[in-house]
Amino acid sequence: MTEAFDAVDIIRTKRDREVLSTDQINWVIDAYTRGVVAEEQMSALAMAIFLNGMNQDEISTWTQAMINSGETMDFSSLSKPTTDKHSTGGVGDKITLPLAPLVASYGVAVPQLSGRGLGHTGGTLDKLEAIPGWRANLTNDEILRQLDTVGAVICAAGSGLAPADKKLYALRDITSTVEAIPLIASSIMSKKIAEGTDSLILDVKVGSGAFMKDLEQARELARTMVRIGKAAGTHTVALLTDMSVPLGRKIGNALEVEESVEVLAGGGPDDVVELTVALAREMLLATGIDTDPSENLENGKAMDSWKELIRAQHGDPDAELPTSKHTETVVAESDGVISELDALKVGVASWKLGAGRARKEDQVQAGAGITIHAHLGEAVKAGDPILTFHTDDEPRFEKAREALEGGIKISTVAPTRESVLLDRIG
Amino acid sequence: MTEAFDAVDIIRTKRDREVLSTDQINWVIDAYTRGVVAEEQMSALAMAIFLNGMNQDEISTWTQAMINSGETMDFSSLSKPTTDKHSTGGVGDKITLPLAPLVASYGVAVPQLSGRGLGHTGGTLDKLEAIPGWRANLTNDEILRQLDTVGAVICAAGSGLAPADKKLYALRDITSTVEAIPLIASSIMSKKIAEGTDSLILDVKVGSGAFMKDLEQARELARTMVRIGKAAGTHTVALLTDMSVPLGRKIGNALEVEESVEVLAGGGPDDVVELTVALAREMLLATGIDTDPSENLENGKAMDSWKELIRAQHGDPDAELPTSKHTETVVAESDGVISELDALKVGVASWKLGAGRARKEDQVQAGAGITIHAHLGEAVKAGDPILTFHTDDEPRFEKAREALEGGIKISTVAPTRESVLLDRIG
Repeated sequence: MTEAFDAVDIIRTKRDREVLSTDQINWVIDAYTRGVVAEEQMSALAMAIFLNGMNQDEISTWTQAMINSGETMDFSSLSKPTTDKHSTGGVGDKITLPLAPLVASYGVAVPQLSGRGLGHTGGTLDKLEAIPGWRANLTNDEILRQLDTVGAVICAAGSGLAPADKKLYALRDITSTVEAIPLIASSIMSKKIAEGTDSLILDVKVGSGAFMKDLEQARELARTMVRIGKAAGTHTVALLTDMSVPLGRKIGNALEVEESVEVLAGGGPDDVVELTVALAREMLLATGIDTDPSENLENGKAMDSWKELIRAQHGDPDAELPTSKHTETVVAESDGVISELDALKVGVASWKLGAGRARKEDQVQAGAGITIHAHLGEAVKAGDPILTFHTDDEPRFEKAREALEGGIKISTVAPTRESVLLDRIG
Repeated sequence: MTEAFDAVDIIRTKRDREVLSTDQINWVIDAYTRGVVAEEQMSALAMAIFLNGMNQDEISTWTQAMINSGETMDFSSLSKPTTDKHSTGGVGDKITLPLAPLVASYGVAVPQLSGRGLGHTGGTLDKLEAIPGWRANLTNDEILRQLDTVGAVICAAGSGLAPADKKLYALRDITSTVEAIPLIASSIMSKKIAEGTDSLILDVKVGSGAFMKDLEQARELARTMVRIGKAAGTHTVALLTDMSVPLGRKIGNALEVEESVEVLAGGGPDDVVELTVALAREMLLATGIDTDPSENLENGKAMDSWKELIRAQHGDPDAELPTSKHTETVVAESDGVISELDALKVGVASWKLGAGRARKEDQVQAGAGITIHAHLGEAVKAGDPILTFHTDDEPRFEKAREALEGGIKISTVAPTRESVLLDRIG
């Protein structure tokens, strides 16, 4: 078979700062998926895109081509509208757990296809797997049935969605071409649009614990993704939210389930509640429901929905959660107020304790992680506990202490953080 | 074995416009040669170098690392000084053929390790192989013996020289990362320095038929290579020479041998003679001999040296050269003066006639090529022959005519070209 294009010409086009045509993009993604464009050609193209960029039309076309590389899900047979949330990832970000059942409790379908953690950010499936019996893998039929009955599904994304993205992501990871907005935006959006949701709310994290360290960059990523959604006909809104400190007071798998259940019971830390309610409000608005979602946290409906969700996936929502074998406390060295609690350092410390993994094939510990006793802006006296480390392997305490080094600051002036919400792009 | 560096970090360094350290460069070239750095990682790095550049120290280090990736030749046992010439490639560039024996006729050793042609530029070995019996492959011992006796050797470069460059060149070819000065300069110089010559004269071609279309770019390439030579302790001088029109009046394998023999006999076209003498003068000067090399063209000593060279490599210098089966003449469409004879178009036409190859494994025709009857600045009347095409396969005439399309212009004003020499960088 004669190929319509030559990868060498397409690489040269982008290398020379020219715009790739729709036909060039469609061909290169398809040919890469077929193995006709070699890995070394795609990596040169990825570096050229990293350094020379793509315009919005190129990015939307690139995303659509990745969607077209595989199967897409179809929820049109459901009697309910569908809405989905995606977070760019942070430390202590358990929001999907209370959010999906909360939104579902309003009669909306929430197909939350999720992943596992890598590095310092945890994965939603790892967290839920701390619940005895709970299963992440569902067939497409099981997903549809559960959306119809329970409303919310949190499960592993099928391997048939956007295979070009899977291949490209693995390549970017080993060629230093991850942190480019056109490539990040198209990677996220291709998976999410392939999942077939009617509307999508993006939680774009900003700060030390996030992928985007800087507000302007995060805004550009958010705008790019919202425009991709628009071009694909998926109603998309992005919230920019703070990730300079961990979200909530519990980081780790079982620990985050625990905190999520507190939120579903009408309690929980303010920042977790605020973000859950803000994202739920956007998801409901996108499906035409204008209401204050905190109601269903208070009246128990979200909790009922959570229990149904866990049971539908063979978990026991009333079972005791696993705890770690060992704990160690980090105490304040002086009197004052916590003026810094670096999200990245806390995230890495939690990972080192066993809550996260360095490689895909690593196992995580269900009970490992960190609990925060004194959070940003809270007063301590010398010797007061600030954090507790949890792990099954005592030698990990030392690694966690090293990772946390310099991550906690105590001063006399209390920093102010009114809200985790920084901006909205819709 | 634990590796000293990680390719991902090295790619990121160059991606972020930082300077690579000597240790980083040494490691990445060595690890690439060992297969530890994957092709897709090296191509991302090559694209980052293409777009973000390297400074002179990085380029010299990169070159030395490629030299260190393989064996090097050692001519220190010879009783004569060694000098070598490298041309960046052009159309009708047969200069090595008269030049090597001319310089050798002054008692200097000329180890001219050469290649085969690809695309529109011919290869020195392809040309000499038009001579019945001539052999391109010599062992290192044979090379040393012939340098000692004959003085000049023109042969295939051993595969053990700069293997990193061979691997990298093949990769650059399929990833649109060929035309970057740091990569071109280090590729050429790594091979030439590994060949172990005491001095090196570079013929950097400029114009449509050359790699460098523009004088400023060619100057930068020349300067970069001269500096690499200096850093490696190889006396290096570059001449910038014109390649907007073909060199001489004969293009093709046997045809260029024929024209070279004319020059060695004291005749030949002015531009070929001028460039041969200029390069010979630089090569002799580099070995401490200050003389006018045109003498040995006129007194027959260069011709004697040529015959010895050909015989030493099993060729018959007095044998008849092969000619093509078919010829076709291109005539002037109007009266006037040849104001353009595009080197690239003539080169591609000659290649299409069978003188060159598209892929390494293709065969070339010994007799194919082009003879020029009316060169730049020469007067013609309508119907006068301008060129003759030579080939063994008649259908190739059409391809050659297509390739030449728009390459010949006739006007009333004669262009001036005083000299092929444009600049000297030493």
